[in-house]
Amino acid sequence: MNISIIGAGNVAVHLGAALQHAGHRIIQVYSRTADHANVLALKLNAQAISNLIDLDKNAEFYIIALKDDAIAEIAGLLRLPGKIVVHTSGSVSMQSLETVSERLGVFYPLQTFSKQRDIDFKNIPIFLEASDESVYEILESLAESISGQVFEADSGRRKILHIAAVFASNFSNHMYHLAEDYLSKYNLPFDILKPLILETSMKAVENRPSEVQTGPAVRRDQSILEEHLHMLSEDPDLAHLYKEISKSIQAKKA
Amino acid sequence: MNISIIGAGNVAVHLGAALQHAGHRIIQVYSRTADHANVLALKLNAQAISNLIDLDKNAEFYIIALKDDAIAEIAGLLRLPGKIVVHTSGSVSMQSLETVSERLGVFYPLQTFSKQRDIDFKNIPIFLEASDESVYEILESLAESISGQVFEADSGRRKILHIAAVFASNFSNHMYHLAEDYLSKYNLPFDILKPLILETSMKAVENRPSEVQTGPAVRRDQSILEEHLHMLSEDPDLAHLYKEISKSIQAKKA
Repeated sequence: MNISIIGAGNVAVHLGAALQHAGHRIIQVYSRTADHANVLALKLNAQAISNLIDLDKNAEFYIIALKDDAIAEIAGLLRLPGKIVVHTSGSVSMQSLETVSERLGVFYPLQTFSKQRDIDFKNIPIFLEASDESVYEILESLAESISGQVFEADSGRRKILHIAAVFASNFSNHMYHLAEDYLSKYNLPFDILKPLILETSMKAVENRPSEVQTGPAVRRDQSILEEHLHMLSEDPDLAHLYKEISKSIQAKKA
Repeated sequence: MNISIIGAGNVAVHLGAALQHAGHRIIQVYSRTADHANVLALKLNAQAISNLIDLDKNAEFYIIALKDDAIAEIAGLLRLPGKIVVHTSGSVSMQSLETVSERLGVFYPLQTFSKQRDIDFKNIPIFLEASDESVYEILESLAESISGQVFEADSGRRKILHIAAVFASNFSNHMYHLAEDYLSKYNLPFDILKPLILETSMKAVENRPSEVQTGPAVRRDQSILEEHLHMLSEDPDLAHLYKEISKSIQAKKA
């Protein structure tokens, strides 16, 4: 399939590489920032463009891999009647693309992407939505060419997945961040938490998070909880979160 | 070194195996529950006891690997003058053992242990405290026989480490748990979050959590935050945590 990618951020980079690896041809990469377009286009053996006027109308498939608020903006500028046009966002409705084409879809990979790390798409769940059955079949075959975990999800379901992902990823990362900052206040290196962080995540996915919780809150060890809150009293925001999350842990066990 | 282990829970199991593997001899395993003592003693080729009267006074080293509140309790029952006696807790003071012996220590591995998973001790940080320099040297040589990450930490420092571990491990696991329960409310399987959870933790340890945060809160995407809070309005506790943690993410970025 001939594909054009609108965007050159983390999703575009990793999705583009996976699609190319699966044998698809990426013909163009667009980014407002010419440098970004050039870097990704070079990788994908595609043409870089930084002006939408140069968009080749001969691709079969256009993937808008942009930040949420940029999707509506770019949709206002694109007219691609007859072409399949998808975005990759968990939160934006498919209808936000309806001025671009009548053959629409969403191609939402549930993963966090970063420049620093390569990603194996094979196990990444991809959630699809399409404007009609014929578009869905094409999306599905594209998704199945890179992942073994392909599911249908309309906007409502995608939003549920996105909220779950915020808790599982953004909020767990914030817990690491709070620990990092707390240690650094006492000149202790973040490194000493790394084995614990990795083991905690592996334990959770090999079992169920609900079954493997440990620590003072779930043990209802009131004296430790009070001591920790006392030690955190210089940092009211941290103490507040410690209290609220401990309460939430205990509520689950009630 | 001849070692006796008081306790047969997760710490005792994993620490006992690592010490035996490093060439130390575990001579006895005590647990109030005879079955637990038997199972671990069999693994470690040691004698199982479930009555402290049977404790062999010829070991050189006694490791109390019990839950926090059981340490003081057992300390009240043990008299081992001249022997080295340590506990493995992040939160209990070394002094809680002072009626047991005058040669005391703490041997605190910063990790979460579970029955279901084997653990490689080599990279686990072990934090030591000792009643005097000669005991410290023995503790250090024991710790270094199983781990390449051995540090000194007094009670105050150990409590700081423990608080950081609560955030990095217990609280991140609770974020997974909240996501698990939220998905299950909509009949969505926890499995679809597994690649995201693993990638989030690997990304954090290969970089710094403070540098790799993503999601609507750090992007200050107010419309998504409001939509998520609206979707969570049926579940006030979840909405409350969503709000508080998002606020905390934004405060770090302020």
